[in-house]
Amino acid sequence: MNELKELGEFGLIDLIKQDTINDHSSVVVGIGDDAAVLLPTPRQLQLLTTDMLVESVHFKLTTTTPWQLGYKAIAVNLSDIAAMGGVPRHAVVSLALPQSTPAEFVTNLYKGMKEICRAFGVNIVGGDTVSSPHGLVINVTVAGEVEPANLVCRSGARPGDVVAVTGNLGSSAAGLDLLTAGEWEDFDFAWPLVTAHLTPRPQVKLGPVLAAAGATSMDDISDGLASEAHEIAKASQVGIKLYAKQIPLAPELAEAAGQLNKQALDYALFGGEDFQLVFTMEPGNYEALLAAYLDLPVVKVGEVVDADEGVTLVDEDGQAQKLEARGFNHFRQEE
Amino acid sequence: MNELKELGEFGLIDLIKQDTINDHSSVVVGIGDDAAVLLPTPRQLQLLTTDMLVESVHFKLTTTTPWQLGYKAIAVNLSDIAAMGGVPRHAVVSLALPQSTPAEFVTNLYKGMKEICRAFGVNIVGGDTVSSPHGLVINVTVAGEVEPANLVCRSGARPGDVVAVTGNLGSSAAGLDLLTAGEWEDFDFAWPLVTAHLTPRPQVKLGPVLAAAGATSMDDISDGLASEAHEIAKASQVGIKLYAKQIPLAPELAEAAGQLNKQALDYALFGGEDFQLVFTMEPGNYEALLAAYLDLPVVKVGEVVDADEGVTLVDEDGQAQKLEARGFNHFRQEE
Repeated sequence: MNELKELGEFGLIDLIKQDTINDHSSVVVGIGDDAAVLLPTPRQLQLLTTDMLVESVHFKLTTTTPWQLGYKAIAVNLSDIAAMGGVPRHAVVSLALPQSTPAEFVTNLYKGMKEICRAFGVNIVGGDTVSSPHGLVINVTVAGEVEPANLVCRSGARPGDVVAVTGNLGSSAAGLDLLTAGEWEDFDFAWPLVTAHLTPRPQVKLGPVLAAAGATSMDDISDGLASEAHEIAKASQVGIKLYAKQIPLAPELAEAAGQLNKQALDYALFGGEDFQLVFTMEPGNYEALLAAYLDLPVVKVGEVVDADEGVTLVDEDGQAQKLEARGFNHFRQEE
Repeated sequence: MNELKELGEFGLIDLIKQDTINDHSSVVVGIGDDAAVLLPTPRQLQLLTTDMLVESVHFKLTTTTPWQLGYKAIAVNLSDIAAMGGVPRHAVVSLALPQSTPAEFVTNLYKGMKEICRAFGVNIVGGDTVSSPHGLVINVTVAGEVEPANLVCRSGARPGDVVAVTGNLGSSAAGLDLLTAGEWEDFDFAWPLVTAHLTPRPQVKLGPVLAAAGATSMDDISDGLASEAHEIAKASQVGIKLYAKQIPLAPELAEAAGQLNKQALDYALFGGEDFQLVFTMEPGNYEALLAAYLDLPVVKVGEVVDADEGVTLVDEDGQAQKLEARGFNHFRQEE
């Protein structure tokens, strides 16, 4: 098996640049020149987002395959574009790799990236590949486009709006706990949760649909529902009331939480990396949305209220409690 | 002094997002939402480039200040945009930082980035800040724009074209050797070389000028002139003949090379990170360019020839020799 130090940087680039363009009409120059050259769609706004994944912080190579890792590195960025109501178009990928990395690892990493890019018509148009003295680092930047009328920021929520999410929450964080605990393969309930953690499917198609239907604010759920609710509340200067009973949980989550001695709801509120969308919308528009799409996986989880009510959770007994913003926070020491 | 783990991720973001927008007219949403929202200039092509700098590979914190490091992390990307004939517009910055990093280090890193962005009207519109278990990693992605008529790729050089560069070569690599050797501060000749290495000034203004004047191919010199000449020759399917006597060297380089027991010309040919531009142009256009701009720092260093002549260097005695493509190559073991 070839190691990178035998292949060299240019040999590596030749290895990965196949099958990187899925929408040829928008790429003038892809991988191989000083910069990619892209043809923008007229009268659209440009979106730009970037995410860095660091070995031992965001992933462990003992619990993810390179294919899954590549898939996820792209997925987390597509999710950010969807959360603005936009469509992802192009990705550039930086990799810092230990010299001893097998070439096969890198090609499998790229296979995962290419697979999700192909699924959503995204082009990989460039990158940078360098050596790393300690562990793997992946940085992906995605450029997208959004119709000006479809742009949704965090700041547009208004009191009276519905708060809704696009799918089950908490699965990814429970999946991570199962991976960390180990010996999860024997439990049927573990598979969907672990899969939700390793290869989250971003809501690329739903983002623009919700935007066009009148979402007043939107966020992707990367740090748990509580944290995202606080971000929308802060940016929009409103309060948010969530109902514990309405938060959608995968059927497997309760079983996993029992096994892990945790509360299922805590995973949904404070766990991260679900990459579902949370959005707010006027009730009339929300009803129209549900009527227009029969099988839409959206679930109402609360309401936008006045700022002075803050962010609260109404528990199973109907008691409203202040909801903390805690989620995963780099650099902050956990209690 | 605050460490990052006391400040937290959001405290850090608040600290750095001041003074990041230099061209307000093109930014709809900057730092703080899921993605930046940008207003493209109509009828221009979009450029996208990314570069990753890894501690102990690309820099050592013993030989660079955080300000210089921030400046350089942006500079290397602006250089790539200039090499396409384009204008840099927006940057997104990912940082992986050890938990013990002082907050002051990060603000100084950003001061360096903000300084060069201000100089060239570039906006910092987003990023990602994560923790790192081992050393600092910086990834910058820059989006730029280019008039379609101004786009210059590596592939347009034609036999008969002039080959020229925009300034002295080899200074940066000699500066790195001086830094590595240490005790360079007492030598007056060392300062301009070390400065060329730590804070290279990318040819942001010249790139579009050369493009408009008819450059047929262009590359920024990140891996030494020999390597870039090979890249242009390969992409354009031509040969390139360089003249050793004509390659511009800083007056301090000869002195430093003597001190370091190296050849000054080797630094220019095989050293890296000068971030000057090398370009090709029809002789008539090149004469017109020199006539139009009196103080243009461009120097003819060779000619484009037929592909079967390969890439050669004519030495001081008039002898043509095959020129190797060697330069800095990640993953390839050095002899």
